[in-house]
Amino acid sequence: MDPEYRFSHKHVLGLADLSSEDIQAVLQTAESFKEISARSIKKVPTLRGKTIINFFFEPSTRTRLSFEVAAKRMSADTFNISNSGSSTVKGETLIDTARNLAAMNPDCIILRHPRSGAARLLADHVDVSVINAGDGTHEHPSQGLLDLMTVRQAKGEIAGLKIAIIGDIAHSRVAHSNIIGFSKMGASVTVCGPATLIPPGIEALGAQVSRSVMEAVDGADVIMALRIQKERQQDPLFPSLREYAKFFGVSQKVVDAAKPEVIIMHPGPINRGVELDPKLADGRRSVILEQVTNGVAVRMALIYLIMGGD
Amino acid sequence: MDPEYRFSHKHVLGLADLSSEDIQAVLQTAESFKEISARSIKKVPTLRGKTIINFFFEPSTRTRLSFEVAAKRMSADTFNISNSGSSTVKGETLIDTARNLAAMNPDCIILRHPRSGAARLLADHVDVSVINAGDGTHEHPSQGLLDLMTVRQAKGEIAGLKIAIIGDIAHSRVAHSNIIGFSKMGASVTVCGPATLIPPGIEALGAQVSRSVMEAVDGADVIMALRIQKERQQDPLFPSLREYAKFFGVSQKVVDAAKPEVIIMHPGPINRGVELDPKLADGRRSVILEQVTNGVAVRMALIYLIMGGD
Amino acid sequence: MDPEYRFSHKHVLGLADLSSEDIQAVLQTAESFKEISARSIKKVPTLRGKTIINFFFEPSTRTRLSFEVAAKRMSADTFNISNSGSSTVKGETLIDTARNLAAMNPDCIILRHPRSGAARLLADHVDVSVINAGDGTHEHPSQGLLDLMTVRQAKGEIAGLKIAIIGDIAHSRVAHSNIIGFSKMGASVTVCGPATLIPPGIEALGAQVSRSVMEAVDGADVIMALRIQKERQQDPLFPSLREYAKFFGVSQKVVDAAKPEVIIMHPGPINRGVELDPKLADGRRSVILEQVTNGVAVRMALIYLIMGGD
Repeated sequence: MDPEYRFSHKHVLGLADLSSEDIQAVLQTAESFKEISARSIKKVPTLRGKTIINFFFEPSTRTRLSFEVAAKRMSADTFNISNSGSSTVKGETLIDTARNLAAMNPDCIILRHPRSGAARLLADHVDVSVINAGDGTHEHPSQGLLDLMTVRQAKGEIAGLKIAIIGDIAHSRVAHSNIIGFSKMGASVTVCGPATLIPPGIEALGAQVSRSVMEAVDGADVIMALRIQKERQQDPLFPSLREYAKFFGVSQKVVDAAKPEVIIMHPGPINRGVELDPKLADGRRSVILEQVTNGVAVRMALIYLIMGGD
Repeated sequence: MDPEYRFSHKHVLGLADLSSEDIQAVLQTAESFKEISARSIKKVPTLRGKTIINFFFEPSTRTRLSFEVAAKRMSADTFNISNSGSSTVKGETLIDTARNLAAMNPDCIILRHPRSGAARLLADHVDVSVINAGDGTHEHPSQGLLDLMTVRQAKGEIAGLKIAIIGDIAHSRVAHSNIIGFSKMGASVTVCGPATLIPPGIEALGAQVSRSVMEAVDGADVIMALRIQKERQQDPLFPSLREYAKFFGVSQKVVDAAKPEVIIMHPGPINRGVELDPKLADGRRSVILEQVTNGVAVRMALIYLIMGGD
Repeated sequence: MDPEYRFSHKHVLGLADLSSEDIQAVLQTAESFKEISARSIKKVPTLRGKTIINFFFEPSTRTRLSFEVAAKRMSADTFNISNSGSSTVKGETLIDTARNLAAMNPDCIILRHPRSGAARLLADHVDVSVINAGDGTHEHPSQGLLDLMTVRQAKGEIAGLKIAIIGDIAHSRVAHSNIIGFSKMGASVTVCGPATLIPPGIEALGAQVSRSVMEAVDGADVIMALRIQKERQQDPLFPSLREYAKFFGVSQKVVDAAKPEVIIMHPGPINRGVELDPKLADGRRSVILEQVTNGVAVRMALIYLIMGGD
């Protein structure tokens, strides 16, 4: 990496904004944090006195917890604000609330919001670092980065790999961040899912589209199954769970079509037996729990880097 | 200030209980905390090992957060308990719960409760410091104090100022604490709002009543617009939002009737376009976000002083 | 106690798993923590850098708070996850969620769950220490231990005492842990309640069954009234509150049938006037708030001991 390189982003809103050098810096930093943890030094004083607000407009257990664990392991003070989806939250109110939060001088706001673009809206209106923890169907950059880290740890190198992402590509911010991130790092990404759930123009992000799962995973180094959002079942464009499992569920047969050393990923929580065979989820090719472990390290790295750490 | 003076309250239940010297002590302490923060020393070890419980029976994002930020900046441990309003909470249960909390030996309980008098009830029944974070329509002392601090920082001196408070005076604990506080500090306070929402006898707290907004703000140094509680709209005594905005909304025309250097305040969250013109809320006379910033400093001061700090 | 003795449990799932020596070790450790607190050293650095997750599937104010206070007083970092009962949580999902939590490398998960056996299920599937904070109608070991501690502090010795437990024995995890714990420590336990709410075979845990309250409390050193769960009122096996209070409520007359120095206990929250006369709850024989105070000390001891403290 260029010795002159410095991570110079104030916000992390999406992988679209990060260069491959930025991504490498995040992964390297995350790997150092992970090593420190492995030596059972769980808490470092790096961010003592820093104030980090988890501002979650959608229910989330693991992402919120992962960010909170990451922040506290660096000795930052964390504050949780949740606003469950009962009342639609208007853009203007989001900004007003955020300005109020900013007036309390936090160092970082971590936002999850059902609207695509909410994180950027926030970043444009407050003078505080913003990390996007998932905004609508747009991006989920920390998830993309933890997936990159997991693949790099399993495979040594990302460039040249073939990544197959199976599921509802249209509505998945995880898919979007992954397509962008893996493409930037030199992997080739193939997506596959029900035809109505493959957005036209997804190729522009760097993905190839496959109509059949068997074709998508052919020669793949990585198979990533996306979570089916059951709440979309009333959508007539959506297949039944049974149909979905039959045509797009990742089964042993699907895995056999990939490379022998393929790894299986899932952003969680898993609908077992729908998008992924439970035996595979718990099997030796699965790196699903490694993704969760790496999530803490990646979030430590993101918080650390946007606060000016080196 | 008298060199012998010491802040000697165990509880902060309302500005009615504080002398002008007490108020000055809080404001001075808050200003020191604010200066320390401005030198980016965000965290001081003052209250390490202290236990502070945020006990909130009404949903509140900003007040709860402000107290939590204040406590953690002094290194206290904070605990959040919320009890949303679904089930009416009886006085006896409040006391029972509070006694249980007290048995865990906290140093301070910060209470928000829908019933006027709840904070005093608590203080009378547990041997722990209580700070009232808003009780029914009674008082909201930390809000009153942060408003005093904001005015003092903007104007240099409170005595002799004219403060106009516009809105639903009857149901506003913010108004009550402000009327008491500003009167004690030598300002004159004029209130104005729909006739049905001006409580008879409000003059006893120190306020003058004006029937017209233009008269109320005439020569004012400070205009404070109160939040209209939309949940009161079914109350037949309550004007429609459109009527309210027309007759009591703070507009440029209203501001023009005040002193040229008038400042505009609002306790938040703002119903933009109802009680306050959005342009004014974001304009150069607005000190609304300064109120929020000062809120953290005032709450640090209150917690610090009732725990015996000097 | 045997000088070779060491507390060697990884989990605390129920008093059924602890020996009388283990129980003694917990009580002694808890008493030391209580003494340290009494010298107003509220916070010790013992568990700095440790990560403790409160994972609560049932609403709980005091137990959750008590564990959180306990953990923070030893400088651990705590994280709260709640999952209110709206959606039935399947065993498989519990395990999946727990595995995800475990992948973030916490040191201890404290679980409350509506299903009996949930804590053991968790302990069997994750490589993290688990403390059962109440699982269905099965056990609530920290409550049992705080009750033992409270009795030992009041009476000096547990062996030889007569303990009367009055209420819905069948559905009370508190009763089960107490029957097991007091029996192990050499006390005799008599239970009494509506016939439909005394489970057949409760004698196997070590309890004697009494059909009348007066007989149950005859000569008792301790009367423990259980909380009537009003949500069970629709159950046809359940008496009305009025009937319950008449036949099983602990009144002065009941107390007069016990030993003169009898103490009165209740796990809280109390339905005043149903299972317990309010005068007795607040009277000089009541140790109910002492139970709450001891709860923090016992939970400090449990967390400390399962993390290898000595």
